[in-house]
Amino acid sequence: MRKVVFGGANSLDNYFARKDDAVDWLMWSDEVGEIMADYFKSFDTFVMGRRTYEVAIAMGHGDGSTPGMKTYVFSRTLKPRSTKKLEITSEDVAEVVGRLKREEGKDICIMGGGLLAKSLFEADLIDEIGFNIHPVLLGSGIPLFHEMNRQIDLELIECKTLKTGCVLVTYRVKHESEKKIARGRKAGSGKKGKTKKPR
Amino acid sequence: MRKVVFGGANSLDNYFARKDDAVDWLMWSDEVGEIMADYFKSFDTFVMGRRTYEVAIAMGHGDGSTPGMKTYVFSRTLKPRSTKKLEITSEDVAEVVGRLKREEGKDICIMGGGLLAKSLFEADLIDEIGFNIHPVLLGSGIPLFHEMNRQIDLELIECKTLKTGCVLVTYRVKHESEKKIARGRKAGSGKKGKTKKPR
Repeated sequence: MRKVVFGGANSLDNYFARKDDAVDWLMWSDEVGEIMADYFKSFDTFVMGRRTYEVAIAMGHGDGSTPGMKTYVFSRTLKPRSTKKLEITSEDVAEVVGRLKREEGKDICIMGGGLLAKSLFEADLIDEIGFNIHPVLLGSGIPLFHEMNRQIDLELIECKTLKTGCVLVTYRVKHESEKKIARGRKAGSGKKGKTKKPR
Repeated sequence: MRKVVFGGANSLDNYFARKDDAVDWLMWSDEVGEIMADYFKSFDTFVMGRRTYEVAIAMGHGDGSTPGMKTYVFSRTLKPRSTKKLEITSEDVAEVVGRLKREEGKDICIMGGGLLAKSLFEADLIDEIGFNIHPVLLGSGIPLFHEMNRQIDLELIECKTLKTGCVLVTYRVKHESEKKIARGRKAGSGKKGKTKKPR
């Protein structure tokens, strides 16, 4: 099954943009360019909220013009629209991403804000997360992570220090189903092995 | 001058404890034990807020009994108290830490919560920060960083991956004074070198 990946750049205090959406603090380098080019190769589907979409448009991206790519924009205010390359929808993001995940294709990239990611984390649909942690405390901004109704356990896949002083981290998300299986095994072995302390 | 260091363990979504102060998600190992023992060697002064102090007391620490150590607790509600090893005060934390920084001694460790650190960051008194980023999104809790009235630029000193999947990062804080000097140099060279574009 194709992976759902949430990633991007963040400050150490976990903002992904200033309050006015500015990302002037991002550190660009050839090294980052290469990593990003490589990163985007694995996707054919982008999922974002209205705000990220508008920022992308303003920056000259996000119009669905990248060959072979499809962009889904989730918004309650934008007019729904469906073309081969761009879908603007007011549907539930977890439902749509759940459906996309079962279809054939490359991986799915969740871009931008934390609110979309929050819904997808809570629905246990995110498989991997990756961040380029920048050496800065912005002090205020748009938060990357919002409060969630449960804890998400992660497994570190990679940690790489860039020349800019950024720290690139990639984690696999431990799904609820795995945890249930692990708990089941533990309970099972407990019964067999008499690991409980005698009273 | 002795350094003021703010550090601890955090979740990837930047909480340092659950809402009920629980730190049951912390990953302990011999490796972490060795790192912490080494880390604490450089301090003789601990600075914390009331809440962290109460948690420390409940865990059997924080009573100022560690030999050669002095603990400062900042609180508007606790009764002021001053012994050789423990000082509970309602004074302004930035004033006290600024004064301690000019005294002779080992480094000063800011423990626990983000509110104390916020005041000290804003007063430009913190020299170094270090965190053991845990592979978990707690979803809610007590935040490590609070909103601040300005951006804090950092320089990565070290990044180390632990066997537990934690990522240990240490940063030097770039002080406002350095930035002013850098800006002054830039402006000076601009005048001399005519780097401004002609209109």
